[in-house]
Amino acid sequence: MYTSETQIRVRYAETDQMGVVYYGNYATYFEVARVEALREMGVSYKSMEEDGIMLPVLEQYMKYIRPAKYDDILTIKTYLKELPSARIRFEYEVFNEEGTLLTIANTALVFVDATTMKPCQAPRKLITLLEPKFKNGN
Amino acid sequence: MYTSETQIRVRYAETDQMGVVYYGNYATYFEVARVEALREMGVSYKSMEEDGIMLPVLEQYMKYIRPAKYDDILTIKTYLKELPSARIRFEYEVFNEEGTLLTIANTALVFVDATTMKPCQAPRKLITLLEPKFKNGN
Amino acid sequence: MYTSETQIRVRYAETDQMGVVYYGNYATYFEVARVEALREMGVSYKSMEEDGIMLPVLEQYMKYIRPAKYDDILTIKTYLKELPSARIRFEYEVFNEEGTLLTIANTALVFVDATTMKPCQAPRKLITLLEPKFKNGN
Amino acid sequence: MYTSETQIRVRYAETDQMGVVYYGNYATYFEVARVEALREMGVSYKSMEEDGIMLPVLEQYMKYIRPAKYDDILTIKTYLKELPSARIRFEYEVFNEEGTLLTIANTALVFVDATTMKPCQAPRKLITLLEPKFKNGN
Repeated sequence: MYTSETQIRVRYAETDQMGVVYYGNYATYFEVARVEALREMGVSYKSMEEDGIMLPVLEQYMKYIRPAKYDDILTIKTYLKELPSARIRFEYEVFNEEGTLLTIANTALVFVDATTMKPCQAPRKLITLLEPKFKNGN
Repeated sequence: MYTSETQIRVRYAETDQMGVVYYGNYATYFEVARVEALREMGVSYKSMEEDGIMLPVLEQYMKYIRPAKYDDILTIKTYLKELPSARIRFEYEVFNEEGTLLTIANTALVFVDATTMKPCQAPRKLITLLEPKFKNGN
Repeated sequence: MYTSETQIRVRYAETDQMGVVYYGNYATYFEVARVEALREMGVSYKSMEEDGIMLPVLEQYMKYIRPAKYDDILTIKTYLKELPSARIRFEYEVFNEEGTLLTIANTALVFVDATTMKPCQAPRKLITLLEPKFKNGN
Repeated sequence: MYTSETQIRVRYAETDQMGVVYYGNYATYFEVARVEALREMGVSYKSMEEDGIMLPVLEQYMKYIRPAKYDDILTIKTYLKELPSARIRFEYEVFNEEGTLLTIANTALVFVDATTMKPCQAPRKLITLLEPKFKNGN
């Protein structure tokens, strides 16, 4: 398993008139969280795209437990529980500064060859970087 | 069952550099779709909030089958398959102008009393308007 | 002069915790307004981009007089006061349902050849469609 | 004069199909920049709002010189050139990692008493913190 933590401060733009973060804006937080998780592993999503592999989202699930508020510093824990194949699945937990669990979510994405627009396997580089984390039931 | 259709034209702001609608922006489309579905039933969400009932999102699921493109006129079919109680669940299908199914999704929301911030039952008015649609296995 | 009117209903996502439309979201409203103004003239911005002409924004000014609220149907009046050359300038006024002026704004955009990424003249087709509107001091 | 620097990494959500940051999203960047400038001065905008003073935007101007790209780390220099009175004006310059100037902008905001919704003077605390920066033609 691979685990990563990212912090994001809530912007005013991201609140709505209920006085909390609009439910749709979490998708952007999860984008940031998984891109930072990949960067920590040694993979830049930007470079992956420049190398001709895109990673569109296939499926997104979010459960809202408690609201996030303006100016909160959110901690997003991102989990990769399985080695990616043609797909990659990230799971997330969002906590506020008091350590309260606000949201749980997961995203499935699919590797796509940008020239053919067809699904493809995860880049070899990513697998090589991740394999040691998934040895021996880690 | 209650069914409603809403049309939304994709804005440039809603695309991303993959040349398609950013996955997080569908949450806003579904917000529009369910608010228009409620309006068609005879219920204004704005008035409901002014009357002290809020409807935060509890759970959101989205499956992305094909991408939506800039300037597409999307048709969102919104389904209410059960009478609301303390919760209400909307299901959606998004189609483009060729009738291709792009996305399926569902949202669970919870009725909340704005003064106590506690969950409450769906407003009587909404139930009364909906009951005839759910008679005799419709 | 060319004048066009577009209506936009305010989405919940577009409000912030001040209970009004977030100031940054007007930029999207103005994008919709000028694209609809072009469509009314007989020009699809989408097709223009497919034909290799892009129209990035060069300058944007907005003055906020009164706030727009959730679920308001806004009327945006879009004015083209000069024939486009290498640039095009749109001016806007935003009104709510009571006819109150909420915002005034203007955008300057520049025609860019998508292959060279260099500025270019407005497409001949657009000029031909617009010229009759600008005859005799109209 | 008071000067502050903030760094923001461009999110995928913030790009559009032109492959650059959507012009409307800079408004959010400037919101972050001025809130961080205030925080650096010793003033939390969140606390100011909780104390009953809101700061809606009155006027916004943006000039786009070069585009910002996905994953860029932008540096926003925020300038306060005059002591606030009933209004406060921020000026900004946005640079990319190569030090290229991408955007210049300014925002005028007005202090509003949240109970009366009437304009009011800048909080005494803010003036006291800022006055030393504006002595002797600094």
